[in-house]
Amino acid sequence: RIDGKRLWDSLMAMAEIGATPKGGVKRLTLSDVDKKGRDQFKGWCEALGLTVRVDAIGNMFARREGRDPKRLPVLLGSHLDSQPTGGKFDGALGVIAGLEVMQSLNDLNITTEAPIELVNWTDEEGSRFGHSLMGSGVWAGIYTQDKAYNLRDVDGVSVSEALDQIGYKGEHAAKPFPADAYFELHIEQGPILEREGKQVGIVTGAQAQVWYDAVIIGQESHAGTTPPSARKDALVAAARVVTLVDQLMRARGEDGRGTIGFLQIAQPSRNVVPGEVRFSVEFRHPDDAEIKTLAATFPAEAQRLVAETGCRLELTELFHIPAQPFDPSCVDLVRQATQRLGFSSREIISGAGHDAVYVARSVPTAMIFTPCKDGLSHNEAESIQPDEAEAGCQVLFEAVLARANR
Amino acid sequence: RIDGKRLWDSLMAMAEIGATPKGGVKRLTLSDVDKKGRDQFKGWCEALGLTVRVDAIGNMFARREGRDPKRLPVLLGSHLDSQPTGGKFDGALGVIAGLEVMQSLNDLNITTEAPIELVNWTDEEGSRFGHSLMGSGVWAGIYTQDKAYNLRDVDGVSVSEALDQIGYKGEHAAKPFPADAYFELHIEQGPILEREGKQVGIVTGAQAQVWYDAVIIGQESHAGTTPPSARKDALVAAARVVTLVDQLMRARGEDGRGTIGFLQIAQPSRNVVPGEVRFSVEFRHPDDAEIKTLAATFPAEAQRLVAETGCRLELTELFHIPAQPFDPSCVDLVRQATQRLGFSSREIISGAGHDAVYVARSVPTAMIFTPCKDGLSHNEAESIQPDEAEAGCQVLFEAVLARANR
Ligand SMILES: NC(=O)NCCC(=O)O
Ligand SMILES: NC(=O)NCCC(=O)O
Repeated sequence: RIDGKRLWDSLMAMAEIGATPKGGVKRLTLSDVDKKGRDQFKGWCEALGLTVRVDAIGNMFARREGRDPKRLPVLLGSHLDSQPTGGKFDGALGVIAGLEVMQSLNDLNITTEAPIELVNWTDEEGSRFGHSLMGSGVWAGIYTQDKAYNLRDVDGVSVSEALDQIGYKGEHAAKPFPADAYFELHIEQGPILEREGKQVGIVTGAQAQVWYDAVIIGQESHAGTTPPSARKDALVAAARVVTLVDQLMRARGEDGRGTIGFLQIAQPSRNVVPGEVRFSVEFRHPDDAEIKTLAATFPAEAQRLVAETGCRLELTELFHIPAQPFDPSCVDLVRQATQRLGFSSREIISGAGHDAVYVARSVPTAMIFTPCKDGLSHNEAESIQPDEAEAGCQVLFEAVLARANR
Repeated sequence: RIDGKRLWDSLMAMAEIGATPKGGVKRLTLSDVDKKGRDQFKGWCEALGLTVRVDAIGNMFARREGRDPKRLPVLLGSHLDSQPTGGKFDGALGVIAGLEVMQSLNDLNITTEAPIELVNWTDEEGSRFGHSLMGSGVWAGIYTQDKAYNLRDVDGVSVSEALDQIGYKGEHAAKPFPADAYFELHIEQGPILEREGKQVGIVTGAQAQVWYDAVIIGQESHAGTTPPSARKDALVAAARVVTLVDQLMRARGEDGRGTIGFLQIAQPSRNVVPGEVRFSVEFRHPDDAEIKTLAATFPAEAQRLVAETGCRLELTELFHIPAQPFDPSCVDLVRQATQRLGFSSREIISGAGHDAVYVARSVPTAMIFTPCKDGLSHNEAESIQPDEAEAGCQVLFEAVLARANR
C-alpha cells in the first residue's frame, strides 16, 4: 500500500516551488522556477537510490533496477512544468505519485522483474514555446530536436538557450529507447468524474487536436482622423476570427473545443488603429474526422473574413495530433487494479493532450485520471482531495507492479 | 521670413531622439527618451535667450519678453511626446516651428508688444497613462493635478513618479495663467488637405470624443477539457465588443470614429480559455449629439453582449470632451496670413484631439494644419515635405506676430 499522507506532503512541498498568491503554481518550463522543481525532484530521486539521467531536451529519467537485466523498463511519470496561472496538480501529481510508488517499493522491499523508470517530461504545457508535449514529442521522434531547440518564447529566448541557462541540456540523445509500457496518472482537468461521483478514470485514449500560429497585418493609423473606409484594423479582423473559432466549436456541440488563448497587439496604444495582431488558435475533438474537416476548412474561412477588413492573415499550422487510442492490455491493467481495489470508476477519453499521447506511438501506454474540483484546470483554483490522489496513486502502483512482474 | 531649411534641420535633429528602425519615433511621455527631447528643447530655447520654466505637471514654457510689461503673453507650441510607433512630426512640428518663430524674431531684431511663450505640453498622446491632452488638461483645470499624478502606466509607474524620475516636476503650479491667445501648428494626421491639394488647413474647431477603460472578467479553464457550455471566455466576450465598436462607428458613416487600440489578455496562454481581458474604447464625432448618444447607449449594449457569454464587463468612462470651436478672431488671423502669403487652403475640423482643445476653454485659440502623406499618422511612416512645414511655420509666424503687435 502506498502512503497517502506522504504523497500529499510531497505534493504540497512541490507546490511551494513557484507558488502564486492565489494558491496556484507558476512553474513555466525551463524557467529558474522549473529548475528549482527539477533540482528538488532529482534530490528526492537520489535519496530513494534511483539513478537520474537527463536527455538533450531536458527529459529526466530516474531508474530503479529490476531483477532481470534483459527486461525492458516499465515507465511512469508526467511533467513538473505548469501554466502561467496553473494549479498544484496538473502534471505534478503524476510525477510525485511516481516517487511515492518508488518509495513504497523500497518500503516493501520489492524487487520487480523489470526495471522501472520515473520520467519528468520537459515542456508538456506548451505555454511558453508554443508546442505542447514538447519533451515527449522529441523523445518519441514526432519532430526533431533541432526544430524544438529553435522554438522561441515571446522574449526571443530559444529552447536551446533556456536548457543551457538552467543546466538541463543532458548528454543522452533525446530519442525513444525500447520500453515495456508507460503509465501516467493525471488529474482529469474536466468535470466528468466529479459529476458522476467516480474515484478513478480509466483513460482509453485522447482526442485529436490541431494548433495554429496566426498574424494579422493591417495598418497603424490615427484613431481620430482615419475614416472607416480607410481603416485596416488588425484587431477588428482578429475579433472576427475569435468569433469564428467560437462558432466552429459550438457547431460541434459539447464535444467541440476551439480556443484562442493567446492574443497580442504588436504595439498597443489607445488612439492608434491596431496594425498587427498575433494570436494562437487550437481545435480539439474526440473524432479525428472533425479535426480533419476543421483543418481543411478553417484556414480559408478565416482568410475570407480577414480579407473583408482590408487586412492580411498569415496562418501557420504548428501541429496536428490525431486521436490516440491507448494500449488495450495496459488499459486492462488499470481496469483490473481499480476493480480489485474497489474504487468506483468509468472509462474516459482525455480532453487534454498528455505526454502519454506521444509515448503511446512507440510504447504500450495507459493513463489513470483522478477527479478535480469543478473540472477546473489551467487555473490557480485547481483542486483535488487527498483521498482522490491516494486512490489514483494506489491504482498506478498496482498497474506498474503487475506489468513489471508479468 | 522664417528659414525653411533651418526648421527642417531642427525637425530632423529632434527626430533622432527616440528614432525607430522603421523611420519613426518612440518618445513616450515622461520616459528617458522624452527627457532627452526635453533637455534638447531647453538647450535650444536658452541658446535663443528665452527663459524656460516648468510647471508641476512638466509643461515647459519658454518666454520671450515683449515691449509692454502689462500685455498678456501670446502662447504657441505643441508637444514632444510620441506614440510607441509614432512619426517624426506629430507634435514636434508645432514645437520646433515655435523655436523657428523665436529664432526669426531674433534674426529680424523684432521686439513684439506682447511677450511670447513657446510651450511643450506634457503627455499629449495619452498612450502611456490613458489620458490624452494630460498636461494641457491639468493646466486648463479640466481635471486636478492629483488625478493626473495618480494615473499609472501598464508597469504601475505613476505620472508623479515618472515626473520625479526624469526631473521634470517643476515648482510652478500647473494652472492657467492669463494669456492673450494660443496658436498651434500641427500635421493634419488625416487625408483631407492632401486629397484636395491644399497647403494649409485653417482649423475652425475639434471634434467631440469619449474614452473608456474596460475589463472583462470570465474564468480561466483548460482549452482541451472545458466544454462550450462551461466556458466563460473573456476574449470571446471582448471580440463582441470590438465588433460592436466597429459597427457603431460605421453606422455613423465617414464621420464616425470608434477604436479599440489597446487590448491585453491578463495571463495569455495558448491552451487556457482567457479569464480576464483589459482594453480601451474611444469614440469621436464632429457632432456633439452623436457622442452624447454613444455615451448614453454603448455601455448598456456592451454589457448585454458580454453578459450573454457568461462574463462580466466593468466599463469606466475616462473622459468626455465636447466638440470645441476655436476663437473666430484668432482663426481669422490664420486665414489672413494664409491669404496674404498666397497659400492654397481650406477650413477644416480636427479629427485628432490637441492641447489647443483644452487651452481654448480659457484662452482665445486657433490651429494651423499642414498636409501629411496618405493622411497617415500614429505610424512610423508618417511623412511631410519640407515646403509644407515651411508654409505652416510661415503662417504661424505671421499670425503670432500680428496678435502680439495688435
Ligand atoms: N494536460 C495538459 O494540460 N496538457 C497541456 C497540453 C494541452 O493543452 O492539452
Ligand atoms: N494629435 C494627436 O495625435 N493627439 C493624440 C490625442 C488623440 O488621440 O487625438
